[in-house]
Amino acid sequence: MTDSALHPADRLALARKATADAGLDVMLVSPGADLRYLTGYQALPLERLTCLVVPATADAFLVVPNLERPAALASPAGALGIDIVGFGETDDAYALIARRIPVGAIRFAVDNHMWAEKLLAFQAALPAAQPVLAGDVLSELRIRKNTAEVAALRQAGAAIDRVHRRMGEWLRPGRTEREVAKDIADAIVEAGHERVDFVIVASGPNGASPHHEVSDRVIHSGDPVVVDIGGTTADGYCSDSTRTYAVGEPPAAFRELYEVLLRAQTAQTEAVRPGVTSEELDAIGRDIITDAGYGEHFIHRTGHGIGLETHEEPYIVAGGKRALEPGMAFSIEPGIYLPGTFGARIEDIAVCTESGGERLNLTGRDLVVLPG
Amino acid sequence: MTDSALHPADRLALARKATADAGLDVMLVSPGADLRYLTGYQALPLERLTCLVVPATADAFLVVPNLERPAALASPAGALGIDIVGFGETDDAYALIARRIPVGAIRFAVDNHMWAEKLLAFQAALPAAQPVLAGDVLSELRIRKNTAEVAALRQAGAAIDRVHRRMGEWLRPGRTEREVAKDIADAIVEAGHERVDFVIVASGPNGASPHHEVSDRVIHSGDPVVVDIGGTTADGYCSDSTRTYAVGEPPAAFRELYEVLLRAQTAQTEAVRPGVTSEELDAIGRDIITDAGYGEHFIHRTGHGIGLETHEEPYIVAGGKRALEPGMAFSIEPGIYLPGTFGARIEDIAVCTESGGERLNLTGRDLVVLPG
Repeated sequence: MTDSALHPADRLALARKATADAGLDVMLVSPGADLRYLTGYQALPLERLTCLVVPATADAFLVVPNLERPAALASPAGALGIDIVGFGETDDAYALIARRIPVGAIRFAVDNHMWAEKLLAFQAALPAAQPVLAGDVLSELRIRKNTAEVAALRQAGAAIDRVHRRMGEWLRPGRTEREVAKDIADAIVEAGHERVDFVIVASGPNGASPHHEVSDRVIHSGDPVVVDIGGTTADGYCSDSTRTYAVGEPPAAFRELYEVLLRAQTAQTEAVRPGVTSEELDAIGRDIITDAGYGEHFIHRTGHGIGLETHEEPYIVAGGKRALEPGMAFSIEPGIYLPGTFGARIEDIAVCTESGGERLNLTGRDLVVLPG
Repeated sequence: MTDSALHPADRLALARKATADAGLDVMLVSPGADLRYLTGYQALPLERLTCLVVPATADAFLVVPNLERPAALASPAGALGIDIVGFGETDDAYALIARRIPVGAIRFAVDNHMWAEKLLAFQAALPAAQPVLAGDVLSELRIRKNTAEVAALRQAGAAIDRVHRRMGEWLRPGRTEREVAKDIADAIVEAGHERVDFVIVASGPNGASPHHEVSDRVIHSGDPVVVDIGGTTADGYCSDSTRTYAVGEPPAAFRELYEVLLRAQTAQTEAVRPGVTSEELDAIGRDIITDAGYGEHFIHRTGHGIGLETHEEPYIVAGGKRALEPGMAFSIEPGIYLPGTFGARIEDIAVCTESGGERLNLTGRDLVVLPG
C-alpha cells in the first residue's frame, strides 16, 4: 500500500490523468462511492442530477441542484477549489453539462452505478458520444488501499468484531431471528458504525440460503445459526464479517461440515500474498471443500473487495486471472449450504501486504457453541 | 383510487399489457421499488444481476444468482407462479436473458434506476435493440395509489407524526444536531418504521440549506430548527414530514417569515383536488411567498410523489402540466431560506381524493416554541 493518505484533491488529479490515459474525453460521476472517493462529498442519490464532471483536458467541476449547493459547499468538496455549479428546478442540467464540456467529446465514461435515467439523458444530450464505464478507470485507483484506508478498514473490522463477541447476549433458543437481528443492529451502531448495512441471522434450514436476511423463525436448541453482519463507519469504510454459531450442541453432521469449512477458510486466509491470483485463492478453499464431498454445496465465489463499498473490486472468483497486490482488501467467505437442513459460512476481511496478508477480523473461528 | 388492493400477479399482468401498449418488446426490471411493486421481492441491489423480464408477448420470468434463489423463492415472488431462473457465478446472465427473450426484440425498457453497468451490459447483449426507460410505463401504474396503498401511506404518516409529537423530549438548547438526530432516528423505528430513510436537523443558519443533514452545531436558545424526517414501513411505504420548531422565542423576523410560509402551505393543501395541475398547485404557494417578498428564497419545487419510494411521480413543480387524479400522493413542502440567517419548511403528505384532498400528516402547523 502507498504510504501517504491521499486527499481528494490528489485523487481528482489522478482521476483526470486516468481519464486522459484511457482515451476518454470526460468522466461523469453521480452520487455514490466514486463521488465520495474523489471529492469527499456524500451526496444524496436523488432524481435531480448531481454530477462531478472530470474532463481529460480541463478542470473538474461539480454540478448540483441549487437546493443542494449549500450542502455541497459545506462538504469536503467545498474545499477542493473546484467550481460548484448550481441549477434551478426547471433547468436542464444535462444540457448545461453538455455545453460546458469540450467540443468534440466523443467518449464519455459514467460511474458504474449511475441510474439508467441519467445515463440515457446524457446520451440524448451528447448524441454523437459513446458511453463507457468509469469503473475500469476508477477501480484501478480504488483497488489498492493506502495506509489511511487500511487503518479505516481495520477500525471497521474491530468494530464488527466487538458485535460478534457479544453474540451470546442475544442468540438464545426461543427468540426469533428478527428479535436477534434488532439487537445486533443496535449493537452495530453502538460499536462504532454510522450505519447498519445488513444483518443476516439465518437459523437452522434458513442457513442454507446464503442471502437469507431474517424471518420470524424461532431459534431452537441445536440450531446452527449463520450471522453475517456489516456496517459503514463515519469515514465511509465498510465492515463485513460472518460467524456461524451453534445454539446448544448441533448435530454431528454439522460439526463435520464446519470442520471442513474451517480448514478451507483458514487455508485461504493463510495463502494471501502478492502474486496469488483470484482464481488460485478461490481454488484453495474450493478444492478442500470438494475433496470432502461438499463441492456442489459451495454455491458462490470466495469473496469480494471492500472499501467505500461493501462489494467492490477485486472479486475472488473462479476464472479471476488478476493477481493480488499490496493494499487490496477483500473478504474470504467460503460457505457450505445443505438445502432444507443447515448451512455455514466463515468470513474475514483480509488485506494483502508486501509480505503476505493481514486479517482484519480477529474473533475466533472455532465453532462457538452458545448455551442452548 | 381503485377499490381493490392489487396483488403483484395482477400488477405483472398490467405491466405486460402496458409493455405491449407502449410498443415495447420487453421490460427489464432490476432490484428496487419497481421490482418490489411488481413481484413483492425486496432484492438486494448488488453487482450480480437480478432481473425481472417482462416480454410483451410471453410470460414474465425472474433471473437471479443461484445464491439468491432461495431468498427469491421465499419472497412473495415465489408465489407468483413465474419461472425463477438461477445462474452460476461464472455464467453470463445477460446472454442468458438475451437468449430467452423473443427473437427480434428491438425496443427494450429498463427500470429508471438500473445501474449503468447493467444497462450497458444489456446493450452489448442486445446490440440491435434500443433501450428506453420503463419509468414512463411503470409510473403510470404506480402513480395512482389504490385503497390499500393509501392505507399504508396513512399508517406511515401516522408513524412519523408520532415522532414529531415527541420533539420536545430531544430538541433543547445545548444539544448538538447530531445528538438530537440520533434520538429521532431511534424514535422513527420505535414508531413503526422498518428503516430510517433520512433525518434532517437544521438549526439556526443551517436551516437555510434545504438538504443540510446534521452537524455538530450546538443548538442555541432562540434558534429555529427545521426537522425533516422519514422512514419506510414493513410493507415498503414511505413517510416524510417536516416541521420547523423554535427552541425558545425566535427572532421577530422569523415569526414573520413563518406566518407567510404557513399561509402558503395551508393554501396549497386546501387546493388539492382532481384537475388541478402540478404547476397550478406550485403557483398557489409560490405566489403567496413572492407577494410577501420572499420569492427568491423559495428555491425548490413544492413537492414530490411518494409511495414505495420517497421521491417518485408526480412532481409538483413549475411547468408541470399534469392534472391531479384521485389516488395520487405527494408532498406539499414550500420553504423559505435566508442564507446565513435561518430557514423554514412545512411539509405534509397529501392524497388527492374524488372530492378534494386528504392530509396524511396531522400534527399542528402553527409554530411550536419549545422551552429554550
